[in-house]
Amino acid sequence: MTLILGIDPGSRITGYGVVRDTGRGCEYIASGCIRTGSGELQERLLIVFRGVREVIQTYGPVTMGIEKVFMARNADSALKLGQARGAAIVAASEEGLEVAEYSASQVKQAIAGTGGADKQQVQMMVMHLLKLVQKPQIDASDALAIALCHAHHRQSLIPHGLATAKRRGGRLRL
Amino acid sequence: MTLILGIDPGSRITGYGVVRDTGRGCEYIASGCIRTGSGELQERLLIVFRGVREVIQTYGPVTMGIEKVFMARNADSALKLGQARGAAIVAASEEGLEVAEYSASQVKQAIAGTGGADKQQVQMMVMHLLKLVQKPQIDASDALAIALCHAHHRQSLIPHGLATAKRRGGRLRL
Repeated sequence: MTLILGIDPGSRITGYGVVRDTGRGCEYIASGCIRTGSGELQERLLIVFRGVREVIQTYGPVTMGIEKVFMARNADSALKLGQARGAAIVAASEEGLEVAEYSASQVKQAIAGTGGADKQQVQMMVMHLLKLVQKPQIDASDALAIALCHAHHRQSLIPHGLATAKRRGGRLRL
Repeated sequence: MTLILGIDPGSRITGYGVVRDTGRGCEYIASGCIRTGSGELQERLLIVFRGVREVIQTYGPVTMGIEKVFMARNADSALKLGQARGAAIVAASEEGLEVAEYSASQVKQAIAGTGGADKQQVQMMVMHLLKLVQKPQIDASDALAIALCHAHHRQSLIPHGLATAKRRGGRLRL
């Protein structure tokens, strides 16, 4: 019964998702967006930092997954994304959470069974896996996908979990 | 008598410099480097965050200057720089400091009187302005230059200071 946080940071919107790993699958706990508005850089980063801290203090996750960035569109957007990412990672670290990074294809593989799945497929699988009746906002859904991927990979570190995951072809068990 | 912090963030080394603005110029207080080592991203960002916080708690600056980034070399280095920058800005914001950004040419203009000054000229002027007998490490020196630039621009906001600065052609008074 581990509470897991997924974070999808962005310069304007940071998505978050919290799931409970029961050992036999994951249950939905919470998800949402931290909107940074259009203030000064300092103010926007503080909103990300405090927003992530508030989510952690409210739900009590013990570990966090975050998407690894391989290719940002350009240097300017990479800088902005990096700043938001730095604020989010530091907030989790200060609260004592371990932070793991996953590539986009690792997340897709864990959720949809293929690294080439598109955003809609991932979102549908997130809804299916967590038995959601309403479609979450896209950043919240991406954050939930990261949390589910993190749950999956953490399980894989347990010898039995690893075997189960391998038999199922690296796909998250339903 | 305002204590001013300058920060030059980087993914490996973050320089810091603290000066005291006496109203008739600036005095050297401290400078140094926060080295992030080669650990995990989470660990390195936490070193920047806690390092900047420790400098603030040790010397008690009330305001911070940081260099604005216009053109990062590439998206990958921009992302890494952004993460360190995010951690540093959030540390200062959490300690209640206001954060101001200056372009590289604004820093050079304030220190050496021309936006086209090279790194060595800036370093020599930092030593001269702060009466340093030893050359500081380059990241520490850059951070001191940013602190001096911030002191200069803060003075410019005071009507009398503005007039003085203008008479001196926008150059930091010696």
